[in-house]
Amino acid sequence: MAVYTDISEAELRDFLAPYDIGELLSYKGIAEGVENSNFLVHTSQGSFILTLYEKRVERKDLPFFLGLMEHLAQKGLTCPIPIHTGDGAVLGELAGRPAAVISFLEGMWPRRPMAGHCRELGKAMARFHLAGRDFELRRDNALSVAAWRPLWDLCAPRADSVQKGLALEVEAELSELEQRWPSGLPEGVIHADLFPDNVFFLGERLSGLIDFYFACNDLFAYDIAVCLNAWCFEKDGAFNGTKAVALLAGYETIRPLEQEEIDALPLLARGASLRFFLTRLYDWLTVPDGAMVVKKDPMEFLRHSRFHRTIRTVGAYGYDLSERAQ
Amino acid sequence: MAVYTDISEAELRDFLAPYDIGELLSYKGIAEGVENSNFLVHTSQGSFILTLYEKRVERKDLPFFLGLMEHLAQKGLTCPIPIHTGDGAVLGELAGRPAAVISFLEGMWPRRPMAGHCRELGKAMARFHLAGRDFELRRDNALSVAAWRPLWDLCAPRADSVQKGLALEVEAELSELEQRWPSGLPEGVIHADLFPDNVFFLGERLSGLIDFYFACNDLFAYDIAVCLNAWCFEKDGAFNGTKAVALLAGYETIRPLEQEEIDALPLLARGASLRFFLTRLYDWLTVPDGAMVVKKDPMEFLRHSRFHRTIRTVGAYGYDLSERAQ
Repeated sequence: MAVYTDISEAELRDFLAPYDIGELLSYKGIAEGVENSNFLVHTSQGSFILTLYEKRVERKDLPFFLGLMEHLAQKGLTCPIPIHTGDGAVLGELAGRPAAVISFLEGMWPRRPMAGHCRELGKAMARFHLAGRDFELRRDNALSVAAWRPLWDLCAPRADSVQKGLALEVEAELSELEQRWPSGLPEGVIHADLFPDNVFFLGERLSGLIDFYFACNDLFAYDIAVCLNAWCFEKDGAFNGTKAVALLAGYETIRPLEQEEIDALPLLARGASLRFFLTRLYDWLTVPDGAMVVKKDPMEFLRHSRFHRTIRTVGAYGYDLSERAQ
Repeated sequence: MAVYTDISEAELRDFLAPYDIGELLSYKGIAEGVENSNFLVHTSQGSFILTLYEKRVERKDLPFFLGLMEHLAQKGLTCPIPIHTGDGAVLGELAGRPAAVISFLEGMWPRRPMAGHCRELGKAMARFHLAGRDFELRRDNALSVAAWRPLWDLCAPRADSVQKGLALEVEAELSELEQRWPSGLPEGVIHADLFPDNVFFLGERLSGLIDFYFACNDLFAYDIAVCLNAWCFEKDGAFNGTKAVALLAGYETIRPLEQEEIDALPLLARGASLRFFLTRLYDWLTVPDGAMVVKKDPMEFLRHSRFHRTIRTVGAYGYDLSERAQ
């Protein structure tokens, strides 16, 4: 949850003046998004999301994120769309921060994802991958394998205070991932943070994807690997093969995977586990207790990582390669 | 800000089924209200507030709060109205907590209140006091003078850790308030927590009052005393007489004060300062740092208290008694 910056009505009125979105009626800070301040704004023309970009989002990346949302919407994907001012701008400044007005997307994220959700997620992710292929901007993944060691170096000295033996285990895993990380697999724009709270449903139907602020150019299969971590483990830590199968099968109805991608999935899933483990560990060790941020337990993802290390082929996730759509 | 309890779509659908408010489209936890979890709910029929009452609100008081909102609305005051189920219920249970669906009130609370806001606030508060006179339920003020000593007894041993000398100062002030606290003044239902974030405006117009979860039976003038504390001090601690005059004058256009009320205001204002000082101090000393609650500085209200102790008559607030509407 995140409302880091409060704003006054006068500031907001000034900011909204160049937009043709009607008369301001209300705005409420909402508990959505971890990196930014978000407000649900009602005007005489409807509902909008106002996002103030806090310091974790780099200003130079905003044209990529906002342009991508617009590009995807033009391709027919349901996602929030940045609203333009009369002058065509999508980015302004409010309370000293970059800020944008985004269309409001109805829908609810699944607190308890089921296999049906995973299947729809797989389809939407594949559509996202295809739709992004001709997006003209590029952004490297700032949290891919090359970024993990610098992050780990900041955490390593205190890692054993979280759990004894952590330093040795993570060092070994990181070294192996660095050596074996694949290249040459199909790549393009990925979401890179498709956790359940970024995927909205209306009933059974996936009504849209949100929060593109980690989107970047990277391996398509890495996006799937993130989702295996984010959607396919139960609260007790058990891996749910039914959900993984649904996710992969849904994806392949839209974009069949290449054999090399399938072979790489277990390793990519280990990488995705480590990526979320490391950023959570960093927050765990550095964010002061009084901050208005819920610190998430990093160990959840180390447990995922340990599971993926036991997997040799994607068949062990439960995915029956013989049933794949060819 | 407060979203203490998250809820799943399935739970929410079940809860909303007996209400005739259309199809659920979205719900967002909002950063509003300190004691409860609040969600802004969109349905095919419009916007609603869903409130889950957390442990600080006593379940036995809910019929008073919800009944009062309905009573005030029937009297023509703009305030949120509890929505009834088909069976006429206004209170249900969701995620193990009492919960209610309330109409959504457009409007924005003034981050920087001006004298014009204070005048409108005064009018609305007087209308509230008049409208509540024939409300049939009764609730004693659980945070009036009799409650302060038990609260202080819990804080006193550690008070000097917040500021040296605090224990002696507060003890003396509390004793004097206990001895001199007035009785026999006009009383009825008061809001008791009319801080700016509970008063919505659309432009210059006051569009409604919200958050009735401290409402109770007490002296009308005590409600004014709370507002003198909540609206008439600047961020630097300076008292703004122009705002106080506007507040009192606005009030008196609707309900002229009796002389005894006017005479009691400085003492009541000291009491209101101490009440908010004590609850903040208690939270300051007891709420763990990791909790998702912004702990407010208790000393702000002790400084208000010190100011009010210098005041002998309401004329010293700047209010010209000769100009009063008689």
